[in-house]
Amino acid sequence: MTSTVPQGIEDLAAGVRAGDRRALSRALSWIEDETHQGRALLDRLYSPSPTAHRVGITGPPGSGKSTLTCELTRAIRSHEGTVGVLAVDPTSPFTGGAILGDRIRMQALAQDPGVFIRSMATRGSLGGLATTTYGASEAMEAAGCDWILIETVGVGQSEMDVVEAVDTTIVVLVPESGDSVQAMKAGLLEAGDLFVINKFDREGGDRIEKEILLMIELERDRRASKNEWQPRIFRTIATRGEGIEALRGGIEEHRAFLWRDPESWSARQDLRVAQRLRTLLRDRILHALWASGRWDPWIAECGRRVREGAASPYALVDDLVARLMAGKGTEG
Amino acid sequence: MTSTVPQGIEDLAAGVRAGDRRALSRALSWIEDETHQGRALLDRLYSPSPTAHRVGITGPPGSGKSTLTCELTRAIRSHEGTVGVLAVDPTSPFTGGAILGDRIRMQALAQDPGVFIRSMATRGSLGGLATTTYGASEAMEAAGCDWILIETVGVGQSEMDVVEAVDTTIVVLVPESGDSVQAMKAGLLEAGDLFVINKFDREGGDRIEKEILLMIELERDRRASKNEWQPRIFRTIATRGEGIEALRGGIEEHRAFLWRDPESWSARQDLRVAQRLRTLLRDRILHALWASGRWDPWIAECGRRVREGAASPYALVDDLVARLMAGKGTEG
Repeated sequence: MTSTVPQGIEDLAAGVRAGDRRALSRALSWIEDETHQGRALLDRLYSPSPTAHRVGITGPPGSGKSTLTCELTRAIRSHEGTVGVLAVDPTSPFTGGAILGDRIRMQALAQDPGVFIRSMATRGSLGGLATTTYGASEAMEAAGCDWILIETVGVGQSEMDVVEAVDTTIVVLVPESGDSVQAMKAGLLEAGDLFVINKFDREGGDRIEKEILLMIELERDRRASKNEWQPRIFRTIATRGEGIEALRGGIEEHRAFLWRDPESWSARQDLRVAQRLRTLLRDRILHALWASGRWDPWIAECGRRVREGAASPYALVDDLVARLMAGKGTEG
Repeated sequence: MTSTVPQGIEDLAAGVRAGDRRALSRALSWIEDETHQGRALLDRLYSPSPTAHRVGITGPPGSGKSTLTCELTRAIRSHEGTVGVLAVDPTSPFTGGAILGDRIRMQALAQDPGVFIRSMATRGSLGGLATTTYGASEAMEAAGCDWILIETVGVGQSEMDVVEAVDTTIVVLVPESGDSVQAMKAGLLEAGDLFVINKFDREGGDRIEKEILLMIELERDRRASKNEWQPRIFRTIATRGEGIEALRGGIEEHRAFLWRDPESWSARQDLRVAQRLRTLLRDRILHALWASGRWDPWIAECGRRVREGAASPYALVDDLVARLMAGKGTEG
């Protein structure tokens, strides 16, 4: 690949590594567009030893994730380290017309040279969201971000893939999130390292806190026997900045837990790399096989046969896949 | 394929077609498990001419989709036709521990022989949700359901795939759904045939209604020039059954619009079949290439090389995919 790479990629990679904001911005566009150049750039920027701590902030729309992300960024900045923010939530104020309070918060942050904010579009049906998001976080890491906060709505498989690729996962709920606790049972509970009950001044906070506590308790012995992290719960009112510093401390604690011994850290990195290879390979195979439009004639022909009642889509697809697996083409 | 099909499939298909509830229930389990038997069954049940009208009910967690679905089912039943309900929302009370009001509603419905309720687990990372859900709706259709209501949380690509496969899409919002309107801009607005502002007795209903109206207005001329449906807005308080009958009427209107002339109906069916073939093929290719664990040795070996700093995951995956596309194996 090296010989075919345009000169521009090396320059851009150097710019990103030097922490140049315009270079990073351009790099993120390449990555988001999933171009060959973007991949070549990521190849240049890749480091096998992560230097950034990735925090996933997930929860239903309306739970205040963006406000929380802003406040958390501010809290981290008042200690030490630079922060990259990736918003992959289509409902996030980072992505579109934020309400006034959030916009003011974000503008204040955007003026801080130690903060880089980027929203990622969710797009396509090829499941590449996790791949592009993680790639974007690698570019931010190469640019020197010590902390990378990834805000994503915690529903949907691609979004769960994003959550699985971070170091610390924060699940944000609100007192009226009765439904959301159901959602957690379907996967988010296992994923959550820290739970935040935001807008805690509203009615119902105690009730939902008890529900989450109960779910954590049910898993406590199993986790303890495996020497796993015990999830913690935080109460916040993000719009007033309340509870944010405690949450920041919780992230530090979780990070220290992950680093507690070199062996478990190393095992974790092995898993991370394997998962990264797996996701990349799956996405690339799908792209190679799918994005080319090579099946269009087959679909047109089979569509006609289905509409005539000659065969069901199931039989036609099974037949084609069997022939493909046997190494034959799409011709009868 | 015909020769290898166990006798049981023909019996089960006959049972489903006769409207036997136990047969349908078993069929749905096969389909949900994505077994070969399930696909063979769907092949038997497939009809190129749809008889059921599929309604997607989508919206953020907490918007009251389940209550609305229950009430809508009741409203349809008080007119004519049988109803199948598919809940593919992990946060749906259909799926897990419903709150009391919903549970009472659902139990009343479950006793109606003209109603069949099923919740689908969202699972796997192979994006098969839309495929299994649509397959389940085909089984319900074969069993004689005239209406199929599919409840799904409207975030995430697999969920959008589900929405794209229905006839009428209802987007449910609540007065406090400021964030959700952002979500709509990212895709749901185009998908929504009918918008429901549920819990309209809460503060803010008028404001969100105006926002949606404005978005509809922006598209009105374009839609009119293409002779497309103009989305409509409904106010409901589902817990009290208010506004439900009007919404049911809106669905009837949209259905009549889709059927307005044989030509556009036929064109729509062609598109539907092509999309179905496309989704099935993509899922089956992914399964065939992916679910087998055939890449595990490659991932182990490459993981080692990445951790040693010898190559980035990007270069390794690009290299493998290039060799696969050239028809070579995984060996150097």
